[in-house]
Amino acid sequence: MNFRSDNTAGASEKVLAALVAANGGTEAAYGADTLTKQVEKQLCEIFERDVAAFLVVNGTAANSLALACAAPPYGAILCHVESHIADDECGAPEFFSGGAKVVGLPGIGCKLEPSTVAAKLERMPAHSLRHSEPTALSITQATEAGTLYTVEEIAALAEIARSRDLMVHMDGARFANALVSLGCTPAEMTWKVGVDVLSFGATKNGCLAAEAVVFFDKSKAMEMAIRRKRAGHTLSKGRFLAAQMQAYLSDGHWLDLARRANRAAEQLEKALLSLPGVRLGWPRQSNGVFAILPEAVDRRLRKANASYHPWSPDWLPVKSMPKKGEALFRFVTSFRTTAMEIEKLHAAGQTEPMAVPRVTARTG
Amino acid sequence: MNFRSDNTAGASEKVLAALVAANGGTEAAYGADTLTKQVEKQLCEIFERDVAAFLVVNGTAANSLALACAAPPYGAILCHVESHIADDECGAPEFFSGGAKVVGLPGIGCKLEPSTVAAKLERMPAHSLRHSEPTALSITQATEAGTLYTVEEIAALAEIARSRDLMVHMDGARFANALVSLGCTPAEMTWKVGVDVLSFGATKNGCLAAEAVVFFDKSKAMEMAIRRKRAGHTLSKGRFLAAQMQAYLSDGHWLDLARRANRAAEQLEKALLSLPGVRLGWPRQSNGVFAILPEAVDRRLRKANASYHPWSPDWLPVKSMPKKGEALFRFVTSFRTTAMEIEKLHAAGQTEPMAVPRVTARTG
Amino acid sequence: MNFRSDNTAGASEKVLAALVAANGGTEAAYGADTLTKQVEKQLCEIFERDVAAFLVVNGTAANSLALACAAPPYGAILCHVESHIADDECGAPEFFSGGAKVVGLPGIGCKLEPSTVAAKLERMPAHSLRHSEPTALSITQATEAGTLYTVEEIAALAEIARSRDLMVHMDGARFANALVSLGCTPAEMTWKVGVDVLSFGATKNGCLAAEAVVFFDKSKAMEMAIRRKRAGHTLSKGRFLAAQMQAYLSDGHWLDLARRANRAAEQLEKALLSLPGVRLGWPRQSNGVFAILPEAVDRRLRKANASYHPWSPDWLPVKSMPKKGEALFRFVTSFRTTAMEIEKLHAAGQTEPMAVPRVTARTG
Amino acid sequence: MNFRSDNTAGASEKVLAALVAANGGTEAAYGADTLTKQVEKQLCEIFERDVAAFLVVNGTAANSLALACAAPPYGAILCHVESHIADDECGAPEFFSGGAKVVGLPGIGCKLEPSTVAAKLERMPAHSLRHSEPTALSITQATEAGTLYTVEEIAALAEIARSRDLMVHMDGARFANALVSLGCTPAEMTWKVGVDVLSFGATKNGCLAAEAVVFFDKSKAMEMAIRRKRAGHTLSKGRFLAAQMQAYLSDGHWLDLARRANRAAEQLEKALLSLPGVRLGWPRQSNGVFAILPEAVDRRLRKANASYHPWSPDWLPVKSMPKKGEALFRFVTSFRTTAMEIEKLHAAGQTEPMAVPRVTARTG
Repeated sequence: MNFRSDNTAGASEKVLAALVAANGGTEAAYGADTLTKQVEKQLCEIFERDVAAFLVVNGTAANSLALACAAPPYGAILCHVESHIADDECGAPEFFSGGAKVVGLPGIGCKLEPSTVAAKLERMPAHSLRHSEPTALSITQATEAGTLYTVEEIAALAEIARSRDLMVHMDGARFANALVSLGCTPAEMTWKVGVDVLSFGATKNGCLAAEAVVFFDKSKAMEMAIRRKRAGHTLSKGRFLAAQMQAYLSDGHWLDLARRANRAAEQLEKALLSLPGVRLGWPRQSNGVFAILPEAVDRRLRKANASYHPWSPDWLPVKSMPKKGEALFRFVTSFRTTAMEIEKLHAAGQTEPMAVPRVTARTG
Repeated sequence: MNFRSDNTAGASEKVLAALVAANGGTEAAYGADTLTKQVEKQLCEIFERDVAAFLVVNGTAANSLALACAAPPYGAILCHVESHIADDECGAPEFFSGGAKVVGLPGIGCKLEPSTVAAKLERMPAHSLRHSEPTALSITQATEAGTLYTVEEIAALAEIARSRDLMVHMDGARFANALVSLGCTPAEMTWKVGVDVLSFGATKNGCLAAEAVVFFDKSKAMEMAIRRKRAGHTLSKGRFLAAQMQAYLSDGHWLDLARRANRAAEQLEKALLSLPGVRLGWPRQSNGVFAILPEAVDRRLRKANASYHPWSPDWLPVKSMPKKGEALFRFVTSFRTTAMEIEKLHAAGQTEPMAVPRVTARTG
Repeated sequence: MNFRSDNTAGASEKVLAALVAANGGTEAAYGADTLTKQVEKQLCEIFERDVAAFLVVNGTAANSLALACAAPPYGAILCHVESHIADDECGAPEFFSGGAKVVGLPGIGCKLEPSTVAAKLERMPAHSLRHSEPTALSITQATEAGTLYTVEEIAALAEIARSRDLMVHMDGARFANALVSLGCTPAEMTWKVGVDVLSFGATKNGCLAAEAVVFFDKSKAMEMAIRRKRAGHTLSKGRFLAAQMQAYLSDGHWLDLARRANRAAEQLEKALLSLPGVRLGWPRQSNGVFAILPEAVDRRLRKANASYHPWSPDWLPVKSMPKKGEALFRFVTSFRTTAMEIEKLHAAGQTEPMAVPRVTARTG
Repeated sequence: MNFRSDNTAGASEKVLAALVAANGGTEAAYGADTLTKQVEKQLCEIFERDVAAFLVVNGTAANSLALACAAPPYGAILCHVESHIADDECGAPEFFSGGAKVVGLPGIGCKLEPSTVAAKLERMPAHSLRHSEPTALSITQATEAGTLYTVEEIAALAEIARSRDLMVHMDGARFANALVSLGCTPAEMTWKVGVDVLSFGATKNGCLAAEAVVFFDKSKAMEMAIRRKRAGHTLSKGRFLAAQMQAYLSDGHWLDLARRANRAAEQLEKALLSLPGVRLGWPRQSNGVFAILPEAVDRRLRKANASYHPWSPDWLPVKSMPKKGEALFRFVTSFRTTAMEIEKLHAAGQTEPMAVPRVTARTG
């Protein structure tokens, strides 16, 4: 019963099989191989646009390389204060950009409000020569809290960004989970509403280690190619990166995987909510369930070897704040999560397992 | 007939099988998994020492992360002017170190002479406050020219480095090829003669994308862990990196692969030398053959679709310089190179293939 | 009536005279001159300790160079969110450190509470490999709000820092103003209570452009010397930097200048408080007066060409928040501020100057 | 008899007087003052063009800030291997640019030949994704060897740079000395022949600490303003920087000072050449005399307390190489060098001073 993260699962069988199949023969190195070309074409089709795509091995690399192209060393990158780029990457955006400032903003459910961004920008006037120059806005879809921006919300944020010439970056580590939940197209969730560059995640959703940085405006392509090489993120045997992504994107496999994970989360939500005293911190919208558990429930689940993360209550709505004896926890499902695991979790949470035999013994 | 590089081959079957086998079940992320622990233990055994090891996906990452731990931003890294870190990584060491200076030195066969290093250091006195402060020496084993440092030569270079408190880094992208050629132990070729940190290559020799940075003094371990994460080189599904390396290191598989590649190079050397007017630029010592070809031979090989790289004659011994109508080329073999490929190359180089049928036709 | 900042004044006559006097003859370049040696000695005497001191031209350079020695690129620097290093230097600490994270914390009156720092550190456990590693604490004395830390408060903050091996930096752009206000010795306000490195300001208090970075532990000296040179902050004609500081420190001149500025602020405080509806945002403790003015008063002062800055009310105590029709402003005095200027300001603020003649005219 | 450098002299009386005169009254900070505006206007007039000018305190800051605007972190900056940016600034260009590569090229008399630059560029093809991307060419006028590029030579180098879209930077630490020697206009020596950005030196030629970065194309101005602030090179009391430059540029003062220094060098050249066995390493063209001295002459000069620097013979023409018992030395004159100093040097060099009294004593 591992609900710690969607990166604790392995890879999908299809993806792994493609990797194995790619092993034969010699191939051009450093991304000049046939499979990489195919993936680039697939991404153009999926996004209905002539995009520039760059494969890398993980989300930190994807985010940081994208942001280094979006923000000069003297730039400021606005984002939610709990976003991965601000809080989980050991300062990777600062490293890749040469010292750009990651400016963390508040927001319930780890979502940015347009008014919050606008207010911050007003306090960071252009050419102030006092603070770093705002040059990028980064939003996460799905967010670190598993919540989603609607297409209209993305558009509203991008419009504010555009008014100050900020590049709009989307951290799509869980892009597929968000997409199938919203039921829109990749284009509708990105460039059609103002996203300039996307970290297109695939690792959490079934690859071994593969993400793509997708530029909707190809003018940054040359800069990105050299930045990637310089960061050690251009694999020599590039076919093995491409093979994963190729299988992932083929025949809607990526969407199937995301639907599976989201469906598991839906079931998990139900299971958790049926336990005594459990409620949600935020509405579940993708493959993460953020639940407030009474101490007793948490204790029972841990005793049964369920694993999941405690979570910061900072961005809960005021009315949902944990009370004494409660705490917020994150449960994440993946394409591999089984109904049995969820049932097992449910069973473990319902009653104090130790207590049952005792009662039985007494009545017996 | 692809002799462009050892990175055009795929992965060894054993390595690939291990990757597939690692896919089941959930695992701790970011290198806290069981396989990674095993690999760390294997490396300790192989190097007969309690080392700190960090897996990454390629040589540029390994080199640059190692050098960032060895050189502060104001440091200078001495190396051969044609070394990979100086000439092939788009300035990666400068990026990872925050602007350290890569100081390229001359040397026949891409090998550094102790006297060259000593003379340069004399011109870079400590605390000059004029030039970057010498803090690291990086040598490549096997070198970019396929040549090898003997154990004694490494010791002599390391001694000079030590006299000025320089850390000694070894770029071992082709470590295994060098090792089996010299016939010494990993320890003898590294820490026993003064190497402090090693980029232990595995990708070119049979992995998909896996290298290890090995610190023989563990004091840099904490810094390295955070630098790796910050550079996007800590994989979330770390088991897939470890699985490759585990199989690579097990049962001497890595040495077998290197022996295969070296043996192929030996055969290739013979095949090339039997062609009219061909001679070697440097003695072949590992899996690279650097041959000076007359134009006619080069033309015949290309016509037969053989592929290999032209190479800079800068570091040839004066007596070996290409004459008019000649040029230097690099041929690299891998664990996958077949005797048939070499024979085919040999056949193609011997006579003008086009000419033969014509003549035959006329006589016929 | 310029109360915008203490950097709008020129230099003290003594300092300027010393500069002129230093012009004769040839002198060793790059800080190897006689005057620089003298200043180093003076600072040792003033701080009652064998310190390492480095002259630079301004506070941004002093702060950033000090912090670059205190925090590695992967380090985090904790400070008040409104501190100069966080909000006014265009990301200079990020630049000099190679991407360290400046972590802004809240605090009334721009002062950090020990409990705030402790709580943040608890959320940034060592070796988390998720966030930048806390390595420095920076406090400003006097603060950006003109408030002061008592010696005991500095000790309490430093103790928390020490418990996690954070280096303690003091931004002393207005060090002298704080010192004469507290009435303690330089040693008591710094290393005796745990400060490791100090930006010792002199420009705002009477120099043309001169500050010193003072390390109380000399082990960082070599690194600092090369970082300073590399940042273009080692002046070739170093005597001109030293001459300023030499005169500034001689015969208690620096303390006299600070007393003058503080006394002017005291008078200014009285003058402002005697205006209708004016109150202080924070208690005045050095040479800055932060006053909440009714709109009418602000209008009258501006009409009379008084200049001063609007200020963010973010860090006011809740009870002091400006009400409708009020706003917070910063007035700064310098060693040059005259009683006449203050009287003029006072006069301008008292009555609506336009109104008076009209009434007179009617009665006339 | 100090001929070590032109930075061992103080400031010209006029410059110093202007500094003193600038001290009265309050002034806007950070370069928004009246004097700075005047200097910007003066530079536009002098260069016959609407330039963007930025004052800083020294040449390292000027060069590095200019180059950071000219080269991205992944860029390469071509220059002479002995140029100040490559060899004397502790890696400052690497620091300011975020890791750009300074590529040192050979050249007799520290001058670059167009063919050398062209050949190097051919070996660094665009978008190679192997080496840093060539983006800037930096030339020094007058060079580190005191030699000069003719206007035509600058044009030829700039043309090659332009063919690959490299920005052309001129390190003009001794711009005035070069200008008066060539007898051309500032415009003719810079933008009219393709220079894009100039480090306009004034410190060595009579200021205390003042240089200007001059952009002939103003599009880099915004970026430069924020980079300067971020590097701690925007002085708060900016008037003191401007006052120096204003006086320096007024009434041709800067040209007078340079003529004085050059004339002194001319006399020094004669004096040195009249000593037994002395010859020049390179023709003297500005205010540096590079002379090859026999050991005996060097010994006599040192004994008389003359000071000057030994110099690397690396870039001497082959025919001029020092023979056994000879060495190359640099003598630099400044606007302050007196005829008496030169005569004294001459006297000291002529005969073994010790010997004379002995002979006299015997005859006496």
